[in-house]
Amino acid sequence: MSNFILHDKLAEDTFEVLTLQISRLLLMNDARYPWLILVPQVCDMRDLHNLSSDEYLAVTNEITKVLEVLESVTKAHKMNVGALGNMVPQLHIHIIARQTNDAAWPGPVWGVGEAQPYSQDDADTLIQQIASKLS
Amino acid sequence: MSNFILHDKLAEDTFEVLTLQISRLLLMNDARYPWLILVPQVCDMRDLHNLSSDEYLAVTNEITKVLEVLESVTKAHKMNVGALGNMVPQLHIHIIARQTNDAAWPGPVWGVGEAQPYSQDDADTLIQQIASKLS
Repeated sequence: MSNFILHDKLAEDTFEVLTLQISRLLLMNDARYPWLILVPQVCDMRDLHNLSSDEYLAVTNEITKVLEVLESVTKAHKMNVGALGNMVPQLHIHIIARQTNDAAWPGPVWGVGEAQPYSQDDADTLIQQIASKLS
Repeated sequence: MSNFILHDKLAEDTFEVLTLQISRLLLMNDARYPWLILVPQVCDMRDLHNLSSDEYLAVTNEITKVLEVLESVTKAHKMNVGALGNMVPQLHIHIIARQTNDAAWPGPVWGVGEAQPYSQDDADTLIQQIASKLS
């Protein structure tokens, strides 16, 4: 973990929420959907099934926790989870709270329209709500 | 599990591959991408984080196994995993083998173009390759 460096694209597009046992949790700077990204701090890892058993167990536990918390904070209609990594090769898991009136419903959020940046206040509020339930 | 009934839409769009410890494994009838769907045979379940701990562990283990096998069979450039369920409310996990020249690369596969049905021979061959590595 000591040599782990967050991919530039993930760093650019997100705010940091907090660091869990194994993953860094990020908030996508896109106010259209509450959209978190979980990045296991494991070097040179591209796919879930390449994690060790212990790492995989830790990551899947963190996915569950983050799903529960984001659903509770946002009162989402449906949670979406995905690990794609077609564009950014560093392993990262998308956890997205969906509403039936959001900008991409019922399709997936990836590749739809342009991100709408948060105001700093709105980002801070959401990050605080999520972090307080996870720490 | 005894009362579990596969959602009509999943049944219509897929071939059955085999049944694992907890999930039924299906092949999407879309020859554009080797695309499997894992359906935990748990009644009235919509989201990963609503599974019991034991069920979640079983499902995440099956995700890993299926990822490994599909990657190996297809020599995929990248594996994609997603649990969306915005249209079909029954919990199901997409596991898709991607190539850099496929019909949706580098975007996600959902909602892109029209499915191209397999010939029965091609479907049988792929199902046989996958099932033999999983059983």
